[in-house]
Amino acid sequence: MTRRQRIVMVVIVGGSLIYIILTQVYLVFGGAPGEPPTPEVRNFCSAVIKKNLSGTEEDGMPIIYVVTPTYRRPEMIAELTRLGQTLTMVQRVHWIVAEDSSTCTSAITNLLQRLGLPYTHLATPMPDIYRKERYVPRGVSNRRAALAWVKENGDDNGVLFFLDDDNAIDIRLFDEMRSTDKVSMWPVGLIGDYTVSSPVVNDGKVVGFYDGWPAGRKFQVDMAGFAVGVAYLKKQKKVTMPYIAGHEEDGFLKSLNLSVKDIEVRADGCTTILVWHTRTAKNPSRLLKLDHHQNDNIKLLTDNMREMGMIK
Amino acid sequence: MTRRQRIVMVVIVGGSLIYIILTQVYLVFGGAPGEPPTPEVRNFCSAVIKKNLSGTEEDGMPIIYVVTPTYRRPEMIAELTRLGQTLTMVQRVHWIVAEDSSTCTSAITNLLQRLGLPYTHLATPMPDIYRKERYVPRGVSNRRAALAWVKENGDDNGVLFFLDDDNAIDIRLFDEMRSTDKVSMWPVGLIGDYTVSSPVVNDGKVVGFYDGWPAGRKFQVDMAGFAVGVAYLKKQKKVTMPYIAGHEEDGFLKSLNLSVKDIEVRADGCTTILVWHTRTAKNPSRLLKLDHHQNDNIKLLTDNMREMGMIK
Repeated sequence: MTRRQRIVMVVIVGGSLIYIILTQVYLVFGGAPGEPPTPEVRNFCSAVIKKNLSGTEEDGMPIIYVVTPTYRRPEMIAELTRLGQTLTMVQRVHWIVAEDSSTCTSAITNLLQRLGLPYTHLATPMPDIYRKERYVPRGVSNRRAALAWVKENGDDNGVLFFLDDDNAIDIRLFDEMRSTDKVSMWPVGLIGDYTVSSPVVNDGKVVGFYDGWPAGRKFQVDMAGFAVGVAYLKKQKKVTMPYIAGHEEDGFLKSLNLSVKDIEVRADGCTTILVWHTRTAKNPSRLLKLDHHQNDNIKLLTDNMREMGMIK
Repeated sequence: MTRRQRIVMVVIVGGSLIYIILTQVYLVFGGAPGEPPTPEVRNFCSAVIKKNLSGTEEDGMPIIYVVTPTYRRPEMIAELTRLGQTLTMVQRVHWIVAEDSSTCTSAITNLLQRLGLPYTHLATPMPDIYRKERYVPRGVSNRRAALAWVKENGDDNGVLFFLDDDNAIDIRLFDEMRSTDKVSMWPVGLIGDYTVSSPVVNDGKVVGFYDGWPAGRKFQVDMAGFAVGVAYLKKQKKVTMPYIAGHEEDGFLKSLNLSVKDIEVRADGCTTILVWHTRTAKNPSRLLKLDHHQNDNIKLLTDNMREMGMIK
């Protein structure tokens, strides 16, 4: 190796090392843990704010802002159709659907418009740095964007609730959560090593959590296990949800300055299950060959499937 | 070995062989393939036949008999709650829930009564001989019992539709199937090697099937891919569904003496997906230790979970 080559080598290796060290220092010390180093991309696509209500019994009833993150996969439209139909049975719901994508999917826009629910449709991609992590913090960018939307646009009288698109819910839970002052909680079924995650309640007060994965969390709860009063949310100075897989709920609730003793107990003193963390089996995303089907319905059928994200 | 021992041995071995041969001969020649050798156990638990309707727009609208087989597992009540709520949005539905069990589960009875839908609740266990098969024909005993109930009690004006408890459905499909003369069909999403199973339609007529698993079937369709007119069903002499995994639909439709050209095409000429063969991920059925929770809500919570089939 000549001297010149050695200098080039030292510059390349040294430069790379300095770059790596600086970015890591920035990631570690540049912000709180789980906070993104640069602002996230947030695209607002469309919204329908409220049904026309005048003199109905719904007037004055708190709006429930249901936040559902989603992402393109073969099951996406099946899940959103099933959940969205269920939400149309509930009074005064505003559905916030936030996609992990830089653009809004037209099949979702069509569904939202057809259902006739008040809604907000956002395209809020996860920052690329988090996609490379071993445990990807899925849905966080979407929920953070929805939080910002609710802080900006939500009724003070309203309630915020996170509900993933594959969860199953007994609609009576909405009656339970509708009157939430600070934060209300209830059990979530089909999750973790105990098949349930629930507050432990003694004399009507939360005294701990029954959850198979404590992981040092102050609030050992699932995302579908609580609701937050919008007025209370707006009062907090530093509301956030960290990009740390498994600690999203705990980080969010801590950022609300909540005490365990403030938790409002629901679902018959946390003794009944009204929501389940069901998971839908994944299907591969396929590329179909249609050589023999250029002149029949299968061409149009598969075009429609592609628009729904069911195939490539 | 003494002579006596040899005689005993010959009797045991010979007797066993004769028994095996006779039972196999009975199974093969004693009935049609897939027919049970002895009558099935069928327990009727309860039914609510019809909502009070007088002078409403629903009057005279064909009833859709939705047949849903189910079995005890951690996800059971979550699935039935989600599906049952969806069915309450549909006019003139009668839900037939048939359990693979010799008794009816009280959590299901409670759900049915709470939903307020017209329903029939049956306990129709699979004959034991089929539980040992490599590919267990799940749900067949339940559907056969429901078929018998519909033939006996169904409105001639009505329509029969099979819908598994974990499927996802766009409720617009009910409008599509409500006017069915013989048999109507449409595509089912998220199934098989093509991510869909659908009739192939040319000039408004079914000319074949687009399905990833032909398997020598005349009707290559999924259980949720068709509906049958009740009057037509009643006219057929030998309606059956065979206990042969993967061939239930084909065997049933063949037993209706149906021609492919008779199939009534739905869902925009079979170009749109209104039902999906989603599958819900299974959770283990656990036995929970509650040593530290005898005096709080967790005891009652887990008792309720046990009643729902969520834990042991």
